[in-house]
Amino acid sequence: MPSTSLSFQHRDEHRAWLASQAALPAGFRVGTTRFDFVPIETPKPAKMTLTIIALDQATPDFAAVFTKNAFPGAPIIVGRQRLKEPALGAIVVNNKISNVCAPGGVETAERVCAEAARLLKLSPRQILPSSTGVIGWTLPADAMIGALPQAVAALAPGSILPAAEGIVTTDLYPKIRRADLPGGGSIVGIAKGAGMIEPNLATMLVYLLTDVAVPRADLRAMLARVIDASFNAISIDSDTSTSDTVALVSSSRVPCHDLGAFERGLHTVCRDLAEDVVRNGEGVRHVIRVAVTNAASLAFARALGKAIVNAPLFKCAVAGNDPNVGRLVQAIGKYVGASGVKADLSKLRAKMGGVEIFANGAFQLNPEKENALVAHLKGAELYASAPSKDGVFSAPIDFPRHERCVELEVDVGNGVASATVLGGDLTHEYVSENADYRS
Amino acid sequence: MPSTSLSFQHRDEHRAWLASQAALPAGFRVGTTRFDFVPIETPKPAKMTLTIIALDQATPDFAAVFTKNAFPGAPIIVGRQRLKEPALGAIVVNNKISNVCAPGGVETAERVCAEAARLLKLSPRQILPSSTGVIGWTLPADAMIGALPQAVAALAPGSILPAAEGIVTTDLYPKIRRADLPGGGSIVGIAKGAGMIEPNLATMLVYLLTDVAVPRADLRAMLARVIDASFNAISIDSDTSTSDTVALVSSSRVPCHDLGAFERGLHTVCRDLAEDVVRNGEGVRHVIRVAVTNAASLAFARALGKAIVNAPLFKCAVAGNDPNVGRLVQAIGKYVGASGVKADLSKLRAKMGGVEIFANGAFQLNPEKENALVAHLKGAELYASAPSKDGVFSAPIDFPRHERCVELEVDVGNGVASATVLGGDLTHEYVSENADYRS
Repeated sequence: MPSTSLSFQHRDEHRAWLASQAALPAGFRVGTTRFDFVPIETPKPAKMTLTIIALDQATPDFAAVFTKNAFPGAPIIVGRQRLKEPALGAIVVNNKISNVCAPGGVETAERVCAEAARLLKLSPRQILPSSTGVIGWTLPADAMIGALPQAVAALAPGSILPAAEGIVTTDLYPKIRRADLPGGGSIVGIAKGAGMIEPNLATMLVYLLTDVAVPRADLRAMLARVIDASFNAISIDSDTSTSDTVALVSSSRVPCHDLGAFERGLHTVCRDLAEDVVRNGEGVRHVIRVAVTNAASLAFARALGKAIVNAPLFKCAVAGNDPNVGRLVQAIGKYVGASGVKADLSKLRAKMGGVEIFANGAFQLNPEKENALVAHLKGAELYASAPSKDGVFSAPIDFPRHERCVELEVDVGNGVASATVLGGDLTHEYVSENADYRS
Repeated sequence: MPSTSLSFQHRDEHRAWLASQAALPAGFRVGTTRFDFVPIETPKPAKMTLTIIALDQATPDFAAVFTKNAFPGAPIIVGRQRLKEPALGAIVVNNKISNVCAPGGVETAERVCAEAARLLKLSPRQILPSSTGVIGWTLPADAMIGALPQAVAALAPGSILPAAEGIVTTDLYPKIRRADLPGGGSIVGIAKGAGMIEPNLATMLVYLLTDVAVPRADLRAMLARVIDASFNAISIDSDTSTSDTVALVSSSRVPCHDLGAFERGLHTVCRDLAEDVVRNGEGVRHVIRVAVTNAASLAFARALGKAIVNAPLFKCAVAGNDPNVGRLVQAIGKYVGASGVKADLSKLRAKMGGVEIFANGAFQLNPEKENALVAHLKGAELYASAPSKDGVFSAPIDFPRHERCVELEVDVGNGVASATVLGGDLTHEYVSENADYRS
């Protein structure tokens, strides 16, 4: 469950709330610049934003996890090397092109790092590069190097909002979450990502900044633990990006009095950002939250939750506010049948919106329950679907109206493990976003 | 590759071709009846078709395979018992309701079998029941028993077409394929299925009838082999139905001179029906055929092919005639990254429509290739997408215009195994079919 239950009537109200969350921890500055270029693969002009997150002093206390996709982007290859370096001084992020399997991709990433390092008076190996956008295209290195001085000149303390806005691609709105720690200091995180999201990790870039002094080894262990129950428990479309990155960086300005409180704060920020990513997922009109309980293992619980939120027919039914719970049971049975895991399902019980729909091996349905389920689905809808005049569907809002979810409970009844997984519905807006444009 | 390369200009042309394929093998009769009923779960009138496939004489020579979904329908539970019986006399199929996890489902299926047996002068255990349609609803046993006499009265030899038409649900058209064997006799198959299709098995009902005398043990071994490379190598939407059934029944009227020729004929019929199922898949506007070659194992080759045809972002790109091959490589990398299988991908090469797009660890793209890929995608499109006035997308044709596919070749380069997998794109028509109606 998110720590907050927000709702917004207008875009400006949401933006004001984001600004209220955006205070940068001590020791960080962010700067961005936007410029035009022409991709070499297709001669249509495009725009790119460069974002720099810089530390006032390079820090040994940083952590990062990257995609498990077997074709990782060049920045991931470079980033894995950076984890071995003694210190991190800045993160340089571009959107629009992800620099994945492009000829000479690693060299290009290193060229950009070298120029940023020169401007920032750092070593190139103190720069973590990140890229997100079209897979397969080549980074416009010359244009990026030409734009870097403006991004450096824009560096300012105070607010992380410019960076949250700079890193987005198909996102409808920026995403910021924070935790202010009882002993002083804060953790502030930003995320981009709306499609190709089944983190393992998720195209998701997440940057978590803190001024609390937590040693590198602790940061890395905590990040691994926290990610498992946040970013690795969501799926927009079951597609795992080649660029997923979550980085956690401490400026070590504030002494850490309570590592446990820090980890709880980190968990809150990650869990809320992960939910933000789903809520702003491409075409998502309903967030689906599946709580799997009493399962034989955590792995089974999480995989079953993923199988449900990734089942296209169930996702379509949710999009249509249609409580076609037969498709839910199909998805459970498919996963158990295909996984090879032996599981006794005779005690399985399932609820939607608190209404029992399955127990004792059979559906428990009637017209009254059907009406209650429809009401629950409609209550969780973020916006109504309507095509534009040219037949293209797109979201009519660029802020989240509320934080309600389609709530599913699956009590497997043969163990003690539990997991909560978040996903979205499958909508015309998703197809329009991904069939009608190169994104 | 299909044995035929058909194309049709008009519905009537396709229906005439179906009729030309429809001759029933000796020893079989089919009959259908259609009737109205009211489901108990929702008080909206509905229509159901009952289809009977009857043997002139009960036969010991039959085989069947069923879904691996862990919540199989009641007819699957009954059908698995029927495999142990000494003889099969008839198959009774209903559409509209699949009788899955409905209270008392097995008893209801047996009641229908008992009444059909009484009318056909068979034992109830000589009747194989099949149901397809909405999951979770209860079979209208009284209405079905009331309708059975008309279906029995309609039984006739000659053509399988009434059965091919009787078993459909969301299919746009019936599916019939045949093989006439050099030594005499024939194999004729029919299939229904358009959504919830990733056979393991696929909602897919397939009935394969032959008059060639092949003993039960041979039929069962052959069916298992043939299904693996046909129905288990397709996916519409990665959802595995609770009702999938493929049955193969011989009336043993014609001596079998060549078991090998019979198995080749069976393979042809199954492979062509499997492709028909994909081509008529819910919302499918492009059939995607992935040939994976030089893989380390058959299992890897097939799973990689499935991962590609099930990747939503790649499927959307194909729907939009957009050669966004970055998403193809993402899907490959995701599968290899998540599967835990160690695979050397450094020699991987990929082609679309014969055009090399990936080699030596990098994309091989330029504007000329992009144009060729767009032309290939457009050439494989079955129909153009357009919403109706109310915003609902549906197929404007109820016949297959051609048999062209989006042809992908993935040469893994680290082994000798190969597999071909078929899938479809992800379209507005799929979402409309599954979000806007209970099906």
